[in-house]
Amino acid sequence: MKDLRSYFNHEVPRVGEFLERETAGLDGLVREVARHVLLAPGKRIRPILTILMARAFGYEGDALPLACALEILHSATLLHDDILDGANLRRGLPAAHTVFGNTETILAGDVLLALANRLGAGYDIPRINYLLAEGIMATAEGEIREIAFLSDPAADRKTYLEIIVGKTAKLIETACRCGAVLGGASRDREDAAGEFGLNLGIAFQLVDDALDYAEASSDTGKPEGGDLREGKVTLPLIYLLEAMDRAEAGALLSRLRAKSVGPDDAREVLRRVREAGLAERTRDKAAEYVARARQALSRLSGCRETDILAQAAEFVLTRRR
Amino acid sequence: MKDLRSYFNHEVPRVGEFLERETAGLDGLVREVARHVLLAPGKRIRPILTILMARAFGYEGDALPLACALEILHSATLLHDDILDGANLRRGLPAAHTVFGNTETILAGDVLLALANRLGAGYDIPRINYLLAEGIMATAEGEIREIAFLSDPAADRKTYLEIIVGKTAKLIETACRCGAVLGGASRDREDAAGEFGLNLGIAFQLVDDALDYAEASSDTGKPEGGDLREGKVTLPLIYLLEAMDRAEAGALLSRLRAKSVGPDDAREVLRRVREAGLAERTRDKAAEYVARARQALSRLSGCRETDILAQAAEFVLTRRR
Repeated sequence: MKDLRSYFNHEVPRVGEFLERETAGLDGLVREVARHVLLAPGKRIRPILTILMARAFGYEGDALPLACALEILHSATLLHDDILDGANLRRGLPAAHTVFGNTETILAGDVLLALANRLGAGYDIPRINYLLAEGIMATAEGEIREIAFLSDPAADRKTYLEIIVGKTAKLIETACRCGAVLGGASRDREDAAGEFGLNLGIAFQLVDDALDYAEASSDTGKPEGGDLREGKVTLPLIYLLEAMDRAEAGALLSRLRAKSVGPDDAREVLRRVREAGLAERTRDKAAEYVARARQALSRLSGCRETDILAQAAEFVLTRRR
Repeated sequence: MKDLRSYFNHEVPRVGEFLERETAGLDGLVREVARHVLLAPGKRIRPILTILMARAFGYEGDALPLACALEILHSATLLHDDILDGANLRRGLPAAHTVFGNTETILAGDVLLALANRLGAGYDIPRINYLLAEGIMATAEGEIREIAFLSDPAADRKTYLEIIVGKTAKLIETACRCGAVLGGASRDREDAAGEFGLNLGIAFQLVDDALDYAEASSDTGKPEGGDLREGKVTLPLIYLLEAMDRAEAGALLSRLRAKSVGPDDAREVLRRVREAGLAERTRDKAAEYVARARQALSRLSGCRETDILAQAAEFVLTRRR
C-alpha cells in the first residue's frame, strides 16, 4: 500500500489547490457554499481514480481539471441530496443547507454541475461530456430510487443494489471511464476501466453501509446507526430482516416506513447486527465486487498505475472510516 | 409576421413531440415532474431560435435535439427557481413543486440539466457543451443576484440589468450561439449571433416585466402585479421610485424589503405606474435593445431565416402576453 499512500499524498493536495482556485472565481453567495463542501476534507477518490486511469492509459497531459470535474459533480449531488435527506452532517461538518439555507444550496449545486461540465468541455473530447451527463443522470436516478425505497422499505437485495449502483457506483465508473477516454482508450478498454470503477464503487458503498453499523460518529463524520434512524434499509439490515420471522420483520419495516425507529429500537437492531456479524458479512460481499474490479483491471496493460489501482481496490475493503 | 407565424406553427409541434419522446424514457418519479413543466404550453422561444440560427448558417442536419436541449435547460432552471421563489404558478399551471414536492422537483431539475448536456454531447462538438455549461452558470448567477436584490431592493438600473441578463438573456444568447456553432460559424459570426440573442433576451424580459404591470392573470399565467407583491424591483417600478421623493421611495423600498406590500399598496403602485405610462416606457427601453439585436443580425448574411429572426425581434415588442 506504500505506492497508493504516496500517490494520494502527492495528488490530494493538488486536487485541493485546483478546487481552491476554481471556486475562488465563483459568484459571492454561491462561492461560500461551494467552498464549504468542496474544501472540507474528503477522500478525493473520484479525482484520484481519473488521474490514475488517465496515466494508466499513457496520458501525459494535465488530467487535473477533468479529475476535479468529477469531485465537483460529486459535491453538487451531495449538496442537493443533503437537502432531500434532511441530513445535518456531511464530511464531519454541518451540511451546507443547514448553514447557508436551501436557496443558496440548490443554486450552488446547479452552478457546480455547470462548472464540472465546463471543465469537461475544455478537453475538446465530446465523449467526456456525454459521460459526465450520464453520470449525473444515473446519480439522480439512484437518489430517486432511494427515496421511493424509503417510503416502501423491504428486505430487497435487488433494489438495494440498484440504489447503490445509481447513487455511488455509476459516478465512480464515470471517473474511471473519463480517465481512460483522456488516455485515448478504445471503447473496449474504456469498458474495462468502467467495469473496474463500477465494481469498486459498489464495494465502496457496501463498506460504507457496513461502517454505519460498526463505527462511531467521530471517525466517519456520520452518527452511528444513522442510516437506520433515517429509515434507510442497507445490506446489513437486509441480512437481519431475512433472518427474522415474518411478523418481526414486518413490524420493523413498519417502524422504518413510519420513521419511528427510536433510540432503544436502534440500539437493539445495532446489537443484533453486530452479534450476528452482519457488517462483516456485508464486507465479504464487498470483497466479491473487489474481485470483479480486479478482474476488469487485468484486461488493461499492467503498469505502475494499474498496480496502484489494484491497491486502491484492496484498500476499499480494509478502510475503517 | 406571416413567415414567423408559419415557422412557429411548423416547428413548435415538432419540439413538443421530441420533448414528449425524450421525457417518456425518464425514471418514474422524475418523469411526471419533467413532463409537467416541459409539456405545458410554453412559448418555445429558445429552441426555435436555435433552429432558425442553425438554418441561417446553412445547417441542414437535425437541429431538434440541440434546440430541445435549450428548452430542457430552461425548464430545469424554472423547476429550481420556482422552489426558491416559492412561486405557485408557472405557465398558467400550478408550479411543479406545489404538485410533486421539493424533493422530486430538485431531482427532476438535476436530471433535466444532465439530459440537456447529453443531448448537446450527441453532436460531437465540444464548444456546444462549453456553451451549455456557460449558459447554466449565468442563469444560476442571475438568480443569485436576484435573490440578493430581494433582500436589499433599490432603484438601481444597473443591478436590475445584470439580473435580467443573467436569469433570462444569457440562455437566449446561448440558444443563438449553439445554432450558429451547429452551422459551422466562425467565432466572429457566432459572436454576432450571440449578441442578437443577448439583446433580444433583454428586450424579452423587459417586456415581461412591463406586462406584469399591465395585464391580468388569465393572459400571462401570472397574477397581475405579482412581481411587486413578491418584492421584486423591476424597471417600471424603478422608474416610479426615481420619480418619488426620497422619503416616499424609502418607505416603499422598506415595505418591499419586508415583503409587506399589501393589496391596497399594490393597487396604488399599479395605478401610479399605469398613470405615468411606465410600462410603456419600459417597452420603449426594450425597443432600444431590439434595435441592437437587429444591428447584430445585420452582420450575418441575409436569408429567409434572418428575415424571420428580425420578425421575431419585432414580435417581442408587440406581444401582449
